[in-house]
Parts: sequence; structure tokens; C-alpha cells
Amino acid sequence: MKKIIYLVLLLLVNFSFAQIDRVEPPFWYEGMNHNQVQILFYGKNIAQNTVSVSNNVVITQVQKTENPNYVFVTIDTKNVAAQELIFTFKNGKKAFTQNYSIKKRKENSRNRKSFDSSDMMYLIMPDRFANGNEKNDSTPELQEKGNRNLPGGRHGGDIQGIINNLEYLQSLGATALWSTPLCEDNDKGYSYHGYGQSDVYKIDARYGTNEDYVRLSAEMKKKNLKLVMDYVTNHWGAEHWMFKDMPTYDWFHQFPGYKQSNYRMTTQYDTNASAIDSKLCMDGWFVPSMPDLNQSNPLVLKYLTQNAIWWIEYADLDGFRVDTYSYNDKEGISKWTKAITDEYPYFNIVGEVWMHDQAQISYWQKDSPIAKIQSYNSYLPSVMDFTLHDVYGNVFNEDNPSWNDGMIKFYENFVNDFLYDNPNNLLIFAENHDTGRFNQNYKNDISKYKMAMTILATMRGIPQLYYGSEIGMAGDKGKGDADIRQDFPGGWNSDKNNAFSASGRTEEQAKYFDFTAKVFNWRKSKSVIHNGKLMHYLPDNNVYVYFRYNDTESVMVVVNNSKDKQTLKLDRFQERLGSYTNGKDVISEKNFELKSELSIDGKSSIILELK
Amino acid sequence: MKKIIYLVLLLLVNFSFAQIDRVEPPFWYEGMNHNQVQILFYGKNIAQNTVSVSNNVVITQVQKTENPNYVFVTIDTKNVAAQELIFTFKNGKKAFTQNYSIKKRKENSRNRKSFDSSDMMYLIMPDRFANGNEKNDSTPELQEKGNRNLPGGRHGGDIQGIINNLEYLQSLGATALWSTPLCEDNDKGYSYHGYGQSDVYKIDARYGTNEDYVRLSAEMKKKNLKLVMDYVTNHWGAEHWMFKDMPTYDWFHQFPGYKQSNYRMTTQYDTNASAIDSKLCMDGWFVPSMPDLNQSNPLVLKYLTQNAIWWIEYADLDGFRVDTYSYNDKEGISKWTKAITDEYPYFNIVGEVWMHDQAQISYWQKDSPIAKIQSYNSYLPSVMDFTLHDVYGNVFNEDNPSWNDGMIKFYENFVNDFLYDNPNNLLIFAENHDTGRFNQNYKNDISKYKMAMTILATMRGIPQLYYGSEIGMAGDKGKGDADIRQDFPGGWNSDKNNAFSASGRTEEQAKYFDFTAKVFNWRKSKSVIHNGKLMHYLPDNNVYVYFRYNDTESVMVVVNNSKDKQTLKLDRFQERLGSYTNGKDVISEKNFELKSELSIDGKSSIILELK
Repeated sequence: MKKIIYLVLLLLVNFSFAQIDRVEPPFWYEGMNHNQVQILFYGKNIAQNTVSVSNNVVITQVQKTENPNYVFVTIDTKNVAAQELIFTFKNGKKAFTQNYSIKKRKENSRNRKSFDSSDMMYLIMPDRFANGNEKNDSTPELQEKGNRNLPGGRHGGDIQGIINNLEYLQSLGATALWSTPLCEDNDKGYSYHGYGQSDVYKIDARYGTNEDYVRLSAEMKKKNLKLVMDYVTNHWGAEHWMFKDMPTYDWFHQFPGYKQSNYRMTTQYDTNASAIDSKLCMDGWFVPSMPDLNQSNPLVLKYLTQNAIWWIEYADLDGFRVDTYSYNDKEGISKWTKAITDEYPYFNIVGEVWMHDQAQISYWQKDSPIAKIQSYNSYLPSVMDFTLHDVYGNVFNEDNPSWNDGMIKFYENFVNDFLYDNPNNLLIFAENHDTGRFNQNYKNDISKYKMAMTILATMRGIPQLYYGSEIGMAGDKGKGDADIRQDFPGGWNSDKNNAFSASGRTEEQAKYFDFTAKVFNWRKSKSVIHNGKLMHYLPDNNVYVYFRYNDTESVMVVVNNSKDKQTLKLDRFQERLGSYTNGKDVISEKNFELKSELSIDGKSSIILELK
Repeated sequence: MKKIIYLVLLLLVNFSFAQIDRVEPPFWYEGMNHNQVQILFYGKNIAQNTVSVSNNVVITQVQKTENPNYVFVTIDTKNVAAQELIFTFKNGKKAFTQNYSIKKRKENSRNRKSFDSSDMMYLIMPDRFANGNEKNDSTPELQEKGNRNLPGGRHGGDIQGIINNLEYLQSLGATALWSTPLCEDNDKGYSYHGYGQSDVYKIDARYGTNEDYVRLSAEMKKKNLKLVMDYVTNHWGAEHWMFKDMPTYDWFHQFPGYKQSNYRMTTQYDTNASAIDSKLCMDGWFVPSMPDLNQSNPLVLKYLTQNAIWWIEYADLDGFRVDTYSYNDKEGISKWTKAITDEYPYFNIVGEVWMHDQAQISYWQKDSPIAKIQSYNSYLPSVMDFTLHDVYGNVFNEDNPSWNDGMIKFYENFVNDFLYDNPNNLLIFAENHDTGRFNQNYKNDISKYKMAMTILATMRGIPQLYYGSEIGMAGDKGKGDADIRQDFPGGWNSDKNNAFSASGRTEEQAKYFDFTAKVFNWRKSKSVIHNGKLMHYLPDNNVYVYFRYNDTESVMVVVNNSKDKQTLKLDRFQERLGSYTNGKDVISEKNFELKSELSIDGKSSIILELK
């Protein structure tokens, strides 16, 4: 009997004796706009404690939930200089403490610059780019081990691999890097894409450490390269520790548990939509392994906001790309985005808004005249020009176009620019990690690739290039995602072909690379392309002509998508040619006299700097 | 020598002795908002005269042009009651007079009602509808003579033919008639369509007289039918008397003379467009036989404005359909439209805006939130839902749709309704006189026709039906316009098949007619369809479900475009079904119990009045 009583007492003691397993954000910074910091303390039965903090810092709120393992403690850091704080947790006579740092910010952090239309953004999937550290291909604590033989497995690419190849990015003409997510994704399989995150404060150990990520950022800064983090607000992975022990039942959208999204984003503003369809779009899950976050829960929203700001400050980031932006709770994601841009006024964030109508895409851009109709503002500075991506799909095969085919499709993509608040802050791209690969679609016809890159390098917006296309990489979406996400040749020690170096490239790869590097390196210093106005002309005979111009410079772009040589009468372009008499082609480096006519070969393009 | 002097004197006398060939508008009305009436006097050398007017009426402006045969005299009619005025033209000692009437207006003319979403608009081509007077098939003064054997010739249909068949319109469920233009088109050939007008103050004699047109209007009023005139502001025919003797060189757009339009209406608001492309869209001509009017010339604009108002007042009209609205000078057409709706505040005008993007169509509707981006307002109350027309094209053949096919296309047409200021004032249609015929596209599969008409009769907007489809008429646009504009059977005495009467219809024609008449006659009294809200549900298994509802009534429409019978779980529709337990199908007249499920046959539709 005594033994039993002793055992019960022991159990009770254990039950009430909390300890801290996680503190998030793990530290904060002085002088932040976001100064009401809500710190999550996680530990067995931690909610049974009272909490206090040292140094006269004020706790403005202690929030507990139905789960006793969580307590959310908000402190006011408005006038709190960098220092070490001590939190004390007490339950009766038991007590324990937890240190917490307020750190110094990087100088002028608030006014950090970000990516913009002067950049060329290079998109990689880190697992498939370069393996700089073979020791971390598998780690004991993470479920899926490295296996390069599995197309959908983990191949071992990592942060060190990126660091090793920053000069490659520079030589290509890239100035910014968008890597798909690097935070921990501990799914059993198919985890390499990183969109099912299990810990959003921690870099996946198979990519490296948090410190490696900071080092990547620092190395990039030295080379004038910008680092853009792929942020996922819409969902986490089912292996996320908070999904396994939910702070509140409504931290995730519950039906209960999984219900598939209907993926119809128009329900977010369709005045004729039913409530159930709208809810299912926003709250439904992408897949069963990705529980959908409930941003209408203020705790969730604050968690995501602080996490995002923390990463910017901690890793000295230059921008975000936000996954599935238009699937989020519309009001919640607007608050999240506003909080970040309130903290960093010049920080650019590009949201994935995969729609096929300019008005619908515009809706999600900050200060959109379309969203204004419904008094909505997402505060998202940049959206993706998915209608332009649609055009890239087949247009270069349309040799003898009808009324609606051929280069008119490019032209028509830009006629609705007035629907955007800022068309120059659209990410423009021919492909990304979720779409068919351009060189596959066009059967590696380099003449078509060159026309595509000419437009990408000279059109309004921020050009984004998907890794590998610049060396002619193809891959068939029809065979599954793995095929469009193949390893970059040369990223692995065992690779026989090393396309990272000029000497390692095949002749074919060099043709692709040299063209790409030429136009994008030229673009680097061309403010007329970065910020100049656009004037375009109705395509004639499948030839698209447009000008980028400002007060001092003018560039004339001619893309001939017909098979035949075409001769243009130049008087039609008088409004923009004005008194220019010559143009030097960036591609061929030849001079063109601009008298009465201009000839251009079939399936080719020229970029004339006017003189 | 004497002889020569005598001859010279004679010539001078003749030269200076003007006479009046035309006065336009031929009369005006008292108490008009538009009271500064600019009267065109046309006659040989009329500009050599001074002009005065009787009854103390004030001439506010006398405008002469480079053509001495014209003088434009503006009088102030603000406080001028109905009376006869006398204009006196003097040149030295020579003088002559011209009477001019100010007439009484029809009572409450200003506040005349117009067509709206309570109507069903029936569209006919008058030459092809019914020949009520064989004597006017050809007339001596007009070039093209009647010849029913020519597919593109004049077949003899006329105003009397319409008057004879007004009861047919009523029995069909039509409440408004849009006839393609009836004013004189004196082209040598291919004149039956009437869009190349040679005199816009005169009904084409092959259709009847101005008085016949007024009689048509009066007969229609007696039957509660509304008359909508097809107005052409953009161009006249090359046989127009003012083209043959132009008042000013810039009355028409000159390049000089003809230059083809590029037909790219987006240039009207594309901020990237070149001036030359914009000009060519607006100012270029449709075809050489249709000189393009210059609405930026105030004389032209006033002429068109007065002509339009004159017809409304004179023929007691219920609305306008305006041809090629978006090809007009943007500012000019806005002034024209505003002047008319200032005169008649409840007058509806629907403009042809043949574009394929809701934002672009919305741009042309009055108070458009899209046009507001550019501080533009067309003042045009109604536009045409051409994107819906695009959907009608092939959707009923899409039996096993992918993500973007089948009934989702209908759904997606309505998700952007928030881009319109007034989606309920859109003209909706499956076809018109310029498009492929529905029954041709669908090979006279009546089940597809029925689905199409179900949607047309129950969706938001103003339904428009193209003559003949209601009896199954087909016609191949690929063979030319004549094939989609065939004669209505029974409109000619010699016709063996008379589809105007129930007894004359073939069994097949009766099937089409009876269905059409049933749904549109039912629609006549259904304010919930006219003005109710719309809620629609994401199509599932190719079944589209939507509700029209207001505070007192609710209608559930189910269209099953799959080949198979489908069973819907009703809990999904709880938001709209509420406590309704039954629905009576307008089509089958059967009652449906609304418990847990609802079944519907393949390729069919039901319209449930909920109880």
C-alpha cells in the first residue's frame, strides 16, 4: 500500500513538473516594429505554471489553450534593448527558468533593399542542384534517407552545394536566388520538395544547419546576390510537431481532419459563390500530408508572422516567395503580408497566384484596382505573371498563326497591364518547378529557347529562370514531377558532365548557356529594361516588336516567330524611333542601320540598343 | 460677246440661287433636354445665304464648312412651344423660306421605360423574317432589287411582315424585338444586312416607310412588346449622300479614303499601345463600303446624337442596340451615349463589345470599376456577354470534362461578375446574326438546345434569342453569313412550311418551339429570375447547379451535361435550400421531393420552383 501511495505521489510530481522543449521564436530583436512578441513555450503541462520575466520587462498577455503543453506569453519589447531575459515558471513551490535573448539588429535592417525588376531570379530545387556535403545526405533523426536512384527520392543537394556554385549564378547573369523551401520536411518519403514542413524554425539537416543558411546569405551578399526564401503560410507537413500535438483544435482546418481543397481560387472573390465552395477552397487541404493552417486563428497568424520576420532578420533575407498565396485565408494572409512590409517597407514578396486571367491575378497585388472593388488589399507587392507563362506554352510552334495565335498571344498578355497596380513588379517566367519544362515542350529547339529568353530578358517585370534550362535541360511533366526536377549535371562528384564550368559543358549546353548569359549579363546594368516604359506594336506576320524606353535610352526588340525572313517597314515605328538612326544588336553585336526597312531571319530575335 | 455675258450672268444666278434638298433633323420637339438643335440645311450653295428664323426664336450659331452646300444652324428651343417656324435664307435680293416644325412630345416621353432583365429579346434580320408586302421587294430608287434566289440578296422581308407576326413573338415568350437596321442601305449588292446606311433619317423603302416603322412600334406597344432599334454610330455606307458630298473632309476618317481597321479593340485602353495601332483600330474602316465616321468632329457627334434622339421620340422606341460600340472614338461615343441617357434617364442601350475577357467587356459598361481605373465612363448601360457566348460554343459536347472543360466553363463565366457594375444588365445569348448557329454547332441535338435555353432563361442578364433557333433552324457560318441568315419558314406566301403557326410546324420544329415557349413564357412573370440574386455551385460530375433567389422566392436550376444520370447529395446546397422541401420542375411540371438526394437524367435540365 505504501508502495502504491509513493508511486502515485511520484506520478503526480512528474505530472506537474513541467519542462521546456521548445521556445519560439527562439530569440527576438531590439527596435522592431513588431514589438509585442508572443513567445510560445512548449513542454509537458507547462500551462499549469504561472510565468514571470526579469529586467522589468512587461508581460502583456499570457494565453493558454485547451492543450496544457502550450503557453503563449506576449512581452512588450518596445523599449527593451538587446539583453538576456529570464522567464520563470512556477507551480506552487516548484519553479524553473528559461533564458531568452533580445539581440541587436543588423544596422539599417529595417530599410533593407529587396529584389526588384533590376534582378534576374534563378530558381532552384536545392536537393537537385548540387551536393556540397555528402555527409548530410542522410541524418539519423530524419526519416527519409538519401537515395539518388529514386527519381522522387532525396538526392543530396544542399546549402553547401549552392555556396559552391555562386560564381556560376553570377556568370549566368542571375542576381537573385529563389530556392524552394529549406526548412525541415520530415515526411517518410517524397520529402525533397520541402513544402510539407515539420519545423519552420529549423533548416532541414540534410541541407545543412541554420548557421549554414546564414552563411549562404552572407556569401551571397559578398557577391551582390540576393537570397529569396520560399515561405509556406498555407500548410505544414503532417510530421510537423505541432500537428502531432495541436495547440488548439482549430490550429488547422478540420473537417474533422483532411478534406481536399477544390482548388477553385475564384471563390475568394466571386460574389455568386456559395459559402461551402469558398470554404473548401481556402480551408481544404492540398493533400492529406499537408494539414491546412487556419490563419483566422490569431495565434496561428502571429506564429506565422513572427516566424517570417524572424527569418528575415536572422538570415538577412532579401525577399520572400510565398507558396499558394491565394489559397490562404484572404484576410489573414493580408494581415501577415502587411505585418512584414510594415516591418520592412522595401521588402519584396512575390506570391504564387496561379490563375489565368489578369484581373484575377491583379486582385492579389498590393493596391490592386481590382481588389479595390471589394475594398480588399492583400499588401502583396508582387504577383506571378501566370498568363504570360500560359503564352510561353505553345506559341513558338505557331508558325502560321490565325487571328488569335502566334505572337499576338504575347501582345495580348500585356494589353491588360492597366489592371495591375504595378506591372513592373510581376515575376515573369517561361516555366518553374511545377510546370512542364520549356525545352521539353519545344523539343530542344534552341531557336525557340532564344526567342523565349529574349522576351524574358527585355519585357517589363522580374525575369525568373528555372535551373538547368540555361544548359538545355528538359524533362517531361507528364512523367511526374521528378522528371522536371532532375539533378543539375556537375552538382555531384560522380557526375561525368559538369555544366557548372565552361570547360565541362557539352557543345550543346554551351550554346544554351552562352546565349542566356549574354542577354542576362547585358540586362544587369540596363535601367531602361529594369524601369523603362513599354510600348508594343500589333504583331504583323508573326513578328512582335516592342520598345523599352526612358528619357535617355531606348531599346527595340524584334522577335520573328515565323519561319521566314521578314522585312519590316520602319515608318510604322516612327513614334518610338524618332531620330534614332542606328541600333546595335545585343545578341549578334552587329549594327543595324535604321532607314526604311529592317530585315530579320525566321525564328530569331534581335535586341537593338538605339543610337 | 453679249451672248457670253448673258451666259456668265445666268451661271452666276444659278450658282447663287440655292435651294434646300434636305433638312435634318426634319423636325424637333418641345421640352427636350437637348434644346440647342443644330439643323442641317443642305442645298446647292446654300452657304452663300444668310439665315434667319421667325417667331422670335434665337439662332445661337450658324456654322458653315468648306462645302458650300451645307449650313448648320443651331436654334435655342428651350422655351419654344410646339409651333411652325419659318427659316428665311437670303442672298442679296434673293430669298427663300423653309418651314420647320417644333412638335409636341408624347406624354411622359422623357421617362419612358426600356428593356431590361425582365425581357426576352428576339433578334431578327428583317429581310429574312417575313415578307408582308411583296410590292416593296424592289423599288425604283434603290439599287439592289429583290431576288430570293440569291443567298446574299434581298429576300423581301419587311416591316409589314414583322407586324403580321407579333403574336408569334408573344406566343414564343419574347417581350422585346431587336431588328437589325431598317434605315436605307442603298448599296449595289449585299445590302440586306443594313449596316451600310445611306440615309439615317429614312426607313429603307424595301422595308416600308417611316410611317410603317411608327406603326410597328405602336402595334407592339399594344401587345406589350418593346421595340429596340439597331443603331450604327461607327460608320455609314459608301452610298450615303453625305459621303458623296462631304460636309467636311474630316466627317469621315481619311487615310486619305479607306484603310482597314486592325480590329484590335484593346488598343482603346492598353497603356502599352502605340498611337498608330490605337488610331487604326478606332479610325480604320471595317470594309471599303463602310466609311468610318469621325465622332471627334463636333458636327458629326451632334448629327448622330440628334438623329438618335429623333428616332426615339419619333418612333417611340424602347431601346437601342449599338453596333461595333468599342470601335468608336472612345470620348465621342461616351458623349453620344450620355446625351441620350440624359434625355431619357431610363432608356437602355446595349452595345456590341465583342471581346473575350470580362474586364475588357466591363470597361464599356456605365460606371465600370474597370474603366474607372482610367477615369473613363462610357455611360452605356448594357454590354453583351460575349464570354458567355464563347462558352456556349462547344461546352455541350464536353461529356467527360477535364479540369477546365464542361460545365465549369459556365461557372467560370460568372465568377468575374464583380468586375461589372451591373451584371444583370448584360445581354446574354447563345448566338446572334454574326456567329455560328447553335443548332448547326450541335447538329440539331435538341437535348443540347434545351440545356442551352434553360440557362439562357434562368441566368442573370437579359436573354436574347436569335430568330429561327426556336424551331431548330441551323446554318453554317463557314459557308458565309447568308447561311446563318436564312428565311424564316412561313414568312413568304410561297413557303410550304409555315413555322409561325402551331399547325404549320413540323413535329421537329414543334419540339423546339414548345420547349422554348414554355421556359420563356414562364420567365415573363418571374421577378426572381429578372432581379433575383445568383448563387452557383462548383460543377461536380459535369452538373451545374445554381439558384436564383430573393426574399420571397427561390429557383434551383440543375443542368446535367454528362451523358449519365447523376444523383446529387442535397446537403451541399443547404445554404440555399434552407427549409424548402419540394420543388416543381417548370419543364416537366413534375414535383421533386428535396430530401437527401436529387436525380437527374443525362444531358438534361430541371428548373425547380422551390416550396
